[in-house]
Order: sequence, then C-alpha cells, then structure tokens
Amino acid sequence: MTAAVPGSAMRAEIREQPDALERLLSDLDPIREAAGLLRSRELVRLAAHGTSDAAATYGVYAFGIAAGRTALRDAMSLTVYYDAPLRLAGDAVVAISQSGRTPDVVQHALAARRRGAAIVAVTNDERSPLAEAADLVVPLRAGSERAVAATKTYATTIAALGLLAAEVQGTGAAFAEGVARTVEAQRGLIDEAEAAVAGTVEGFREVERMFVIARGIELATARETALKLTETCRIVAEPLTSTDLSHGPVAAVMPHVPVWLVASGDATATALTEAARRARAAGATLVAVGQAAGTIPDATVRLPVPAAPSPLHAPLLSVIPGQLFACALALARGLDPDAPAGLAKVTEVP
Amino acid sequence: MTAAVPGSAMRAEIREQPDALERLLSDLDPIREAAGLLRSRELVRLAAHGTSDAAATYGVYAFGIAAGRTALRDAMSLTVYYDAPLRLAGDAVVAISQSGRTPDVVQHALAARRRGAAIVAVTNDERSPLAEAADLVVPLRAGSERAVAATKTYATTIAALGLLAAEVQGTGAAFAEGVARTVEAQRGLIDEAEAAVAGTVEGFREVERMFVIARGIELATARETALKLTETCRIVAEPLTSTDLSHGPVAAVMPHVPVWLVASGDATATALTEAARRARAAGATLVAVGQAAGTIPDATVRLPVPAAPSPLHAPLLSVIPGQLFACALALARGLDPDAPAGLAKVTEVP
Repeated sequence: MTAAVPGSAMRAEIREQPDALERLLSDLDPIREAAGLLRSRELVRLAAHGTSDAAATYGVYAFGIAAGRTALRDAMSLTVYYDAPLRLAGDAVVAISQSGRTPDVVQHALAARRRGAAIVAVTNDERSPLAEAADLVVPLRAGSERAVAATKTYATTIAALGLLAAEVQGTGAAFAEGVARTVEAQRGLIDEAEAAVAGTVEGFREVERMFVIARGIELATARETALKLTETCRIVAEPLTSTDLSHGPVAAVMPHVPVWLVASGDATATALTEAARRARAAGATLVAVGQAAGTIPDATVRLPVPAAPSPLHAPLLSVIPGQLFACALALARGLDPDAPAGLAKVTEVP
Repeated sequence: MTAAVPGSAMRAEIREQPDALERLLSDLDPIREAAGLLRSRELVRLAAHGTSDAAATYGVYAFGIAAGRTALRDAMSLTVYYDAPLRLAGDAVVAISQSGRTPDVVQHALAARRRGAAIVAVTNDERSPLAEAADLVVPLRAGSERAVAATKTYATTIAALGLLAAEVQGTGAAFAEGVARTVEAQRGLIDEAEAAVAGTVEGFREVERMFVIARGIELATARETALKLTETCRIVAEPLTSTDLSHGPVAAVMPHVPVWLVASGDATATALTEAARRARAAGATLVAVGQAAGTIPDATVRLPVPAAPSPLHAPLLSVIPGQLFACALALARGLDPDAPAGLAKVTEVP
C-alpha cells in the first residue's frame, strides 16, 4: 500500500480503469437480466448523487440514443422528503451508488419499490443496503476504490449504463465489443495524457474558478471533470451545456476564468465551436479535450483522445485527461487528491 | 425611460413582480385550457435554457407535488442533435422561453410535435416562433422586460407552472388564491429586502466564487439566484442541492467562498441545517435566505422572507433577496446589471 503518498491512490485507480472495465465485460449476465426487467417498464428513473449522478447524465443519453427510452435523473426529494403522489408502478428505478450506502438513494429506492417500481442497483458493493433494496444488482466489479475522488467506479458505471441501454434494445453484444475496443484505446491514452497534463498544470496553479462545457452525451464528462476539479483542487468549476453558457454565465468568463471544453466529434460540434468562440472572445484560457479537440479554433491547450467506436463510447476516453489533470493540479497546488478537505469516501449525510 | 442609469431596468423589473403576477392571475383561461391538454398526456417534458430552465426545475416539483405527475427537464439535444428514437406521442412538452426565440427550445418543440407530443408554450411573447410552434400558449403577461437579467419573467413563469400543475389536479383556484396572498407578501418584502441587502453587499465586493444551496422545491431558487449572481456580478456561483454539496464540492468551501443557502421551512430542513453546519465548519461566510433563515444556526447574514401559503408558493418570495442582492452587488462592483458582458436580451446561439 502506498496510500500515504499524496495522490497515489487516485493515480493508481485512474490507471486501473481498463482492467476494471474488462472485469465488467467478463460477465454480462447481470446486465442482460437487468435489461430484461427494464424492457417491460416505462420510464427509467436514474437516482444518484455526486460522481454517480454525473454518470446518470450519461444514462439519459445512452437510454435515449441506444434504446429510444426516456430516462430522467429523478428528483429524489419528491419521495424522500415530500411523499409526492407519483405513479411509479410502471417504471424502473436505476439506483446508482458505488458504496451502495448513499442514504437518499437507498431511501428513494425503497420508497419506489413500495409503490411498485422495479429497482436495479448499480453498485460496487453487492452486499450494500442498496443492493439489498433492489430487485436486481449490476455489480461494477471495479475493485476496492480507496481514493475519495471516484474514477474507476465512474468509468465502470457509465459503461454499465451504456451496456444496459444497448441490451434493452438487443444490441448489447455490439456495444460490449465497442467497450472492449475503447479499453484498448484507454491503455495508450493514459500514458500520453499523463505526459501532456504534466506540462500543462503549472499554468493553472492560481486558478480559483472555471467553467466546464460540453453538449449532449459529453455533458456527463463535463459534470464529472468539474466535480474532480472541485473536490481535489478546490476550484469552483461549474459544469454547463455550451448553450447554457451563452444564457448568462458567459458574462463571468474572463482571462483568469478558464473554460474547459469537451469537444466530441458528434452532431453537437457546431454548438461547441460557438461556445469556444465566445469563451476566447472573453479572454479565457481555453482547454479543448476530446476527440475533436484539434478542431476547436484557437484553443490554448489541447488534450486530444483517440476516436471512439461510437459517440456513446467516447466518454470513456474523454474523461481521462480531466481525471489526470485534477490529480496532477492538486499535487501542484500542495493538496492531496486522495484526501480532500471535509470529505469521506462514503457520504452518509442527508 | 431611465435605461441609461445602471441597474435601473433590473431594479424596476424586480419591483414590478407583484403587478406582473396580478396580470397573470387576471385571466386563468389559458392555464385551464393547457391543463386540460396535459391531463390526457403521460410525461410532462419541460424544455428551457437559462432562467427559464431554473423555472423548469420548479416545474419538476410543482407537477410532482401538486399533481402527482412526473415532469422532467428534457435533454433537448436528444432531438435537436441526435434524432434519438424517443416515443413522444403520449407526452406533452412544456416549452419555456420568455422571448419565445431560443433556437433549441423552438426546434425541440417542433420535433416533438412532429412525433405526436402536445406542445404548450410558456412565453412572454404570444407572437413568437415558439408560440407559433405550440398547440396552446400560456402567456406570461409580464410586460416588456428590458434588463438582460430576467426577473419578472422568472416569477411569472414559476407561478404559471404552479398554476398549471395545480389545475391538472383540479386545485387551480386554491393555488391561485395562494399566489394572490403571496403577491401581497411580496409587496412588503421588496422594500425590506432592498434595505437589508444594501447593508450587506459591501462585504461581498471581492467575492469571485460561491455555492448556492437548497434542497427540493427551493432548488429552483438556488439555480436562479446563482444565475443572477453569475451574469450580473461575474461571480462563478454554482447551484447545488445541499446533499450534492457534501458529495465533493464541500472540499472547495473555505473562508473566501461564501455559501448562499435557501432555507425553506419544509420537510427538507434537516438536510439544509446539515449543509449549513458543514459550510460553517469550512469557514465560509453563510447567507441564509428564506422563511426558515432564522432557524439556520450560525448564519453570517440572514435575509428572511415572510411565510408563504404553501411550500410551492415560497419560491415567489425567496428569490427576491437574491435578485436584489445581485443587482446591488453588481452596482457596488462597478458593473451595470442591465448590460452584462457578452450578453443580449434574446439568446440566439445554438
């Protein structure tokens, strides 16, 4: 164990992502079984906080695009606090918590189950209270995660949601094959991105606030990158869609407020290019990440990633520069990314 | 016209909110008609950006609590960019845009209508492209809004959504009576809050980043307050649920990072008190706003508002200190809140 060396746990777990994903792919039976349950249900209600909620954002797009199903990030306080008279009997709740111990998520799952919803738990702990509350469990098989800042459980969660959505539509095998190819691309990317990031973080040592921008599928990557920067580097990094940036927040973009832009090469490219133009016009340092990083005009820093088999596989790659950047920048700022201020690995507050 | 005096338009429009709400209440027929359309539909899909999207967050709670209906903030890029094969025929889209000209929202409404969804436009311009794209229009009747930072259209939008949700359940008249009583409370509050805010903003002149926290219904207030602070004061103000603050971002709370907490007096009080405790433990200046502001232990600043007829009426009051604070703080920082950098009144970018 090298947990006493600052950042060693987070760095090791970032590097373990390909292996963790291969373990997930090694047994798709739980995902097939869960997909069978979801197929007979109407809405897919995703319930999560923190990193798992960033993954839930991915789930909205995965279920929409791969399965033609409406998925939503559930407003858990409707059941947990307000006892709202929602009809849930025809729906499924996909409850996501790496620890399986997030109090809200467990309570919401229990309340929804009492009202007739089917519950699928996506968790890294098959013996957790969330797993016990569920009809079926999709185990993440990420292995023990020691760093407070989740990385490998994020990757396995989005892969599990993508596989689940594709399997609902009967295309799970092809999606799994795409994940396997993406894992190979990850292995090369991690070393390359780590080297690229090492030469970049020095310029961000004094940064206190940022915006992290994407549109569509990669919004999950923006949310997760922003969360990593916030919890490990103590930067207030706000994730926004490229369009929402223009609906107000762009007024706060200026030279000392960098903009991190996740440039997918998909149909949203025009919106991202326009957001990049506005950020640069306001004088911001612009970091372009993703497989279309090279196409963003006038980016200050580019952190490209390999092409993914499909836009729904791209987030497995485009989050990696952000994870590595947050880890390296925290260290450059004298912080230990494995032990952020005021946080524990399992969040048990209301 | 006094538009040349910085902040005069925003201040005037904040003060016009009670009158604007009374105009909305003066003719509830469009809301009754729209509720009739929604009653026969499954999901309520809310589509909006910016301030209208903060209002959509309110809509999720209003439809859930007042009508037992699942409403979601739609991922518009699923239709606008990805042409995802969603089944929308049984659903309704409530498309919200004060200008009625937000390109995404109009495109999403048109795409959903082609697929059989019923479209209700909530807009301040009955002749806008969005109104033309809709089956039915709920006019906000806020009057011309000159300030870029929307205030009176936010108030009328959340009131319209609350009325719509209640009317779906057949309780629209009682809800309208509650809005009328809330309007009376607003009239007294505006002068009091303006005076309270005037004595407070000086301490925030150097603030560059903040968190704005709530849980449940008041999350809409948190999102809208954060957006006002961001666009008028150039503060990166990130809105979060009190629970999500604990899932990572609390690590970035420290003495120069204030936390603005919307303290509703409803069932979420425990979660808010815990978030307040964590913010204070991290050394943050804590601003407690809302009808339970007095119950938050150890708040640095308290901006109380009168008790509302019900938790769903409270956001019409609790947003007002935030609007006034943003306007006053922008002026104290030498900025014109009526003309934020890089923004136009109608956002027409992709």
